[in-house]
Amino acid sequence: MSAIDADRMLADLGELSAIGRCGRGVHRPALTQDDVRAREWLAERLRDAGLQAEIDGVGNVLGRCPQRRAVLAGSHVDSVPHGGRLDGALGVVAALEAARTLGGAVDVVSFSDEEGAFTGTLGSRAFVGELGDEERAGLQSADGRRFDEELAATGWAGRPLARLDPARHSAFVELHIEQGPVLEAGPQRLGVVTGIVGIRRLRVTFTGRADHAGTTPTALRRDAGAAALRYGTAFLDLVAEQGGPDTVCNIGAIRFEPGAGNIVPALAEMLVEYRDLSAERLAALDAAVATLVEDVGVEVAVASVIHQDGVAMDPSVIAALERGAQAAGSPARRMPSGAGHDAMILGRHIPAGMLFAPSIGGRSHSEEEDTDPADLVLAAQGLTNAIAELADG
Amino acid sequence: MSAIDADRMLADLGELSAIGRCGRGVHRPALTQDDVRAREWLAERLRDAGLQAEIDGVGNVLGRCPQRRAVLAGSHVDSVPHGGRLDGALGVVAALEAARTLGGAVDVVSFSDEEGAFTGTLGSRAFVGELGDEERAGLQSADGRRFDEELAATGWAGRPLARLDPARHSAFVELHIEQGPVLEAGPQRLGVVTGIVGIRRLRVTFTGRADHAGTTPTALRRDAGAAALRYGTAFLDLVAEQGGPDTVCNIGAIRFEPGAGNIVPALAEMLVEYRDLSAERLAALDAAVATLVEDVGVEVAVASVIHQDGVAMDPSVIAALERGAQAAGSPARRMPSGAGHDAMILGRHIPAGMLFAPSIGGRSHSEEEDTDPADLVLAAQGLTNAIAELADG
Repeated sequence: MSAIDADRMLADLGELSAIGRCGRGVHRPALTQDDVRAREWLAERLRDAGLQAEIDGVGNVLGRCPQRRAVLAGSHVDSVPHGGRLDGALGVVAALEAARTLGGAVDVVSFSDEEGAFTGTLGSRAFVGELGDEERAGLQSADGRRFDEELAATGWAGRPLARLDPARHSAFVELHIEQGPVLEAGPQRLGVVTGIVGIRRLRVTFTGRADHAGTTPTALRRDAGAAALRYGTAFLDLVAEQGGPDTVCNIGAIRFEPGAGNIVPALAEMLVEYRDLSAERLAALDAAVATLVEDVGVEVAVASVIHQDGVAMDPSVIAALERGAQAAGSPARRMPSGAGHDAMILGRHIPAGMLFAPSIGGRSHSEEEDTDPADLVLAAQGLTNAIAELADG
Repeated sequence: MSAIDADRMLADLGELSAIGRCGRGVHRPALTQDDVRAREWLAERLRDAGLQAEIDGVGNVLGRCPQRRAVLAGSHVDSVPHGGRLDGALGVVAALEAARTLGGAVDVVSFSDEEGAFTGTLGSRAFVGELGDEERAGLQSADGRRFDEELAATGWAGRPLARLDPARHSAFVELHIEQGPVLEAGPQRLGVVTGIVGIRRLRVTFTGRADHAGTTPTALRRDAGAAALRYGTAFLDLVAEQGGPDTVCNIGAIRFEPGAGNIVPALAEMLVEYRDLSAERLAALDAAVATLVEDVGVEVAVASVIHQDGVAMDPSVIAALERGAQAAGSPARRMPSGAGHDAMILGRHIPAGMLFAPSIGGRSHSEEEDTDPADLVLAAQGLTNAIAELADG
């Protein structure tokens, strides 16, 4: 086993965390000044490590090793607004450390805009050729920043795109924090991801009629709010009854119009979401959820916001990560990833796998996000071990 | 029966509707320029009709007849933002017409800010002595206008307050549009109000914890949104099962924080309302609703926003209004009022009653609000007949 330099890796993480620092976390949404600085910092570190590093035409940073075949490893350095210092950054810094430790055989990547300031997994989709010119031209952030204009300001616009090369890249591995509370509960300190769950997100809109809530008898109302509340409760019950052990769901947003205490809601809208690794289970839930709109008493429209099936991780990469974790000092727990990651995009094209480090309190996407440094080092060593095995294979 | 001058009354209504016209409706929130103009217009009409008219220190318009005893009749000329032309205005114009038709024995009133630009039934509460100086000094509108400052701009600040005089005012009668769809369904074209329902309005706040909705197993969540949805559905079921035939309820507003599709809500807040004329039934519902917060799985806080028992209308005034409606040409339906009115405030001090005219489609508080002119005339004649009887009594 080639041992990583734990202090060097933690020092890298400290330097990266200082770029865009925001309380205990960082604020580095894609193509903001601090995201740009973080990518330039990374390219320098990759060059220091003997890699040929470039930032491409969408902001992807790729460091290529001298060998003709390489394991691709990395994640992203952009963050959600006011996010944590580890989400993405850990996987990039650990890949850099693996490259230095192994002295080659690793290409290190930091994908652009994984967090979706413009669109989720933007960089990895461009890297595998799934981001069309038309989509890219129309991208803009929720606050109205246009991707093309922001990119032009970085000086990277017009550069060629770094591309996945299946003849070169034998596998993709990504170390990431769990962003959930499962590993913290133990006994295993590391997780090996079996697959990234599929997601359905629906926007369900109920249209009724505004009426005075004091003067309109119940039987004469078309109450969009009551319909939404009943639908929401029935949805939660349905998933609890018909979902599998790993199915999760959420109703994360709801609003009523006009939204006054004494007016029957004319409109109610909510975001309804469910996730599972199994495409069959999701399809069965799709059919069951579709029946919920029957007999709600008002007009209902269901729009699909996200309809994505899960992506299984590669069995040989899973096995290599399990052996790598064991050799680093911890058995690993097999678990699905409930959140999307760049590995989900890469996994459709080359063998891919993910290693999870525990998140204290399950916290992420906030400055509270944290992991015990001993677990960070353990995870980076496990990743390095797996890369060494995959590179030999 | 003294017949009203229908054309004259409809002409008055037309003139009043032109002040602050907004599409087919009016925009005359309390103390706006158009509310002030409407009150000045009314004071002039009252003087033309031989009444001694004044606008008092909160904007109430009172026109006193020469007699020592009088039936007090009226409503309000302020409107909700972008409201209808009849809500309030009909009752004022009909009272003016009754005064002209009967040649005395009627005091005509238009109360200030019934609609609650600053606070609901402001003027009638001041008129009966229920608006304290301290409350009044602190009043401000939702958009930050201070009542005292707005009043100073009218020139009415510092004027004495018009006050209810039980030795003078034998009863209060108010004609109003129904604001609901009951009368439109027939067969009666007029309604006599048995009482104004009591209201409970609660702000229910659920506090959980924000978690990633993909990575946090259901059992480890504290989901404020799910708790709110289940509470809301249980509340609707409870009122349907335990409420009386006239009980109505509403959940008119709800919000989740942080409000994203992939984040378990940390906070959910909703406005929950129920109404009934019977204080006993409301008390029984209070007890039942209080049990709904048990076992919701997250922290819950219930704040009382409105806690008001119903006010029964006076039996002799009810009877006079029924006879007046019958003599005008329509039997009247006895019905509760689900909305609050100035008669609710007056009814705690002197015998009070209300007559309802039908609302087309049940619409009100919008420019769609309307009533067949024949019904307006019928209702005004019914009111005049009842006033004549009460004045003689």
